[in-house]
Amino acid sequence: MYIGIDLGGTNIAAGLVNDECEIIASKSVPTCADVRTGEEIVKAMAELALDLCKENNVDTADIQWVGIGAPGTIDSENGIIAYANNIRFFNTPAAKIFRETFDVPVYLGNDANCAALGEAYAGAAKNARHAIMITLGTGLGGGIIIDKKIYAGFNGAGGEIGHSVIVKDGRQCSCGRKGCWEAYSSATGLINMTVDAMKTDTEKKSLLWKVVKDGKIENVSGRTAYLAAKEGDELALSVTNAYEEYLASGIATVINIFQPEVFCIGGGVSHEGDRLMNPVRKLVSEQIYTRTIADLRQTEVKLAELGNNAGIVGAAMLGK
Amino acid sequence: MYIGIDLGGTNIAAGLVNDECEIIASKSVPTCADVRTGEEIVKAMAELALDLCKENNVDTADIQWVGIGAPGTIDSENGIIAYANNIRFFNTPAAKIFRETFDVPVYLGNDANCAALGEAYAGAAKNARHAIMITLGTGLGGGIIIDKKIYAGFNGAGGEIGHSVIVKDGRQCSCGRKGCWEAYSSATGLINMTVDAMKTDTEKKSLLWKVVKDGKIENVSGRTAYLAAKEGDELALSVTNAYEEYLASGIATVINIFQPEVFCIGGGVSHEGDRLMNPVRKLVSEQIYTRTIADLRQTEVKLAELGNNAGIVGAAMLGK
Repeated sequence: MYIGIDLGGTNIAAGLVNDECEIIASKSVPTCADVRTGEEIVKAMAELALDLCKENNVDTADIQWVGIGAPGTIDSENGIIAYANNIRFFNTPAAKIFRETFDVPVYLGNDANCAALGEAYAGAAKNARHAIMITLGTGLGGGIIIDKKIYAGFNGAGGEIGHSVIVKDGRQCSCGRKGCWEAYSSATGLINMTVDAMKTDTEKKSLLWKVVKDGKIENVSGRTAYLAAKEGDELALSVTNAYEEYLASGIATVINIFQPEVFCIGGGVSHEGDRLMNPVRKLVSEQIYTRTIADLRQTEVKLAELGNNAGIVGAAMLGK
Repeated sequence: MYIGIDLGGTNIAAGLVNDECEIIASKSVPTCADVRTGEEIVKAMAELALDLCKENNVDTADIQWVGIGAPGTIDSENGIIAYANNIRFFNTPAAKIFRETFDVPVYLGNDANCAALGEAYAGAAKNARHAIMITLGTGLGGGIIIDKKIYAGFNGAGGEIGHSVIVKDGRQCSCGRKGCWEAYSSATGLINMTVDAMKTDTEKKSLLWKVVKDGKIENVSGRTAYLAAKEGDELALSVTNAYEEYLASGIATVINIFQPEVFCIGGGVSHEGDRLMNPVRKLVSEQIYTRTIADLRQTEVKLAELGNNAGIVGAAMLGK
């Protein structure tokens, strides 16, 4: 039995995971990142793990290890969280602190990487040796799985696929560069493109103004454009078409580099399902470098399958 | 002792390589790709390897294996060259054909990948576990080394780093897409940018017209812009500055994804040395995602060290 912990900015979620990668019980508590130090959050994670065992009558001696997926840059070799954007970790020796409360082997990984590992063990990529996962949320998170293991480079900071410039001098990205894939293909990118399109529609003729809450541009979400596009609204379709083009361009580039068995897509925008995936698959197949090579096996582009559980499952598999 | 073979469109080069990755003898013959089938070229490689042993009094029984670096898509597991652009290979069982003439273990790899492996064993990346190499020649070849081995994806076609779109709807690339890194940062890309700049200079005031052979635009080479830029020519500097910006943008993206210990650069344009590398290193350091993380080890951006020998050395190391 293993415990996987998914540390988010809002909640800490922990799950008991068995050898079949099933979550047999889970529990979560607020992170309170605004009032807690990194050390305090690590202690809260250890207490949560102990509580989870207690409430489910699991002997802590039966826990082979605990895996933690945390945002930021992880030094997994030394059990250190080097840096995170939204939680106060600065070279925090998380594994050591955790074991002061719950003495068990502790493995650390980046949260996006853990989600990819979860999909590779029990989700969309479970039959793949090499897989890439992207998460289309506030940002564009990336996870690289090579030989069924997380690849994060020599310093643990690799896998930042979202911070690939795809449009020279393009949209401003949160990372400081311009034109990153994240600035176009994250949910935030989709929202920005939707807002820009609405601003051009000064007479408010587009359905976009009807489907958005209270008709207010500040309520545009990642769903707005797809809701109006479904009804055939032209302005909305111009947004979703452009969004899919940027997304597919980035996916084709990543496939050219990695040629993984599976490229899988999760996060909020992926809930559009086939409406998103069908045009994206077509665009990708028209662009990949290997499209003309006869008999060559090609990458499958799939939806992620585990949703929010991917992080817990992947964290639990960190010790494999 | 090993034999490494570097199969090019013009010549087949073979070298006897020892355990210290030194080439102790080498020999080359023309490829004759226009008049020979893929099978005939494989046989010529086997004969070249036998001749190399004979001329150097090496017993063929002392050859542990032969490694072949070939252009195109390689199925290294099954010893097959699936496809190449400029040589007639179509799912050619190269290892099997080779062994009909010289019965020795045969390993196959893509030529750009072999060059990267050579640098990783004996060149710029010899202390690196993970390394990326790009070659700035007619195209922009890429090689990915992970854990001291070539990474080429599940179908052998990975590592096409040059076919990453960095400018949406940008310059036409030979692969069919628009805006690939190769279209900007290969020697061909540099030549195209130089020609475009010269066409704007209708009065031919720029030094570019003086340094190019016979003052003719059709003689522009990958050196033209750097030759004139060295003398302070403004138009030439605008070309080399733009070239370095595209190159650095792509390098920063690849570092964000892979975080290798070493990113190394070979090929014709790399002969500009520090004149190219100093501005590129500065631009990369300003753009990488990890630039603000204190104490984090950062990727070294270096010139390749082995030149044309990288392919032979890397091919010889394919069996390691």
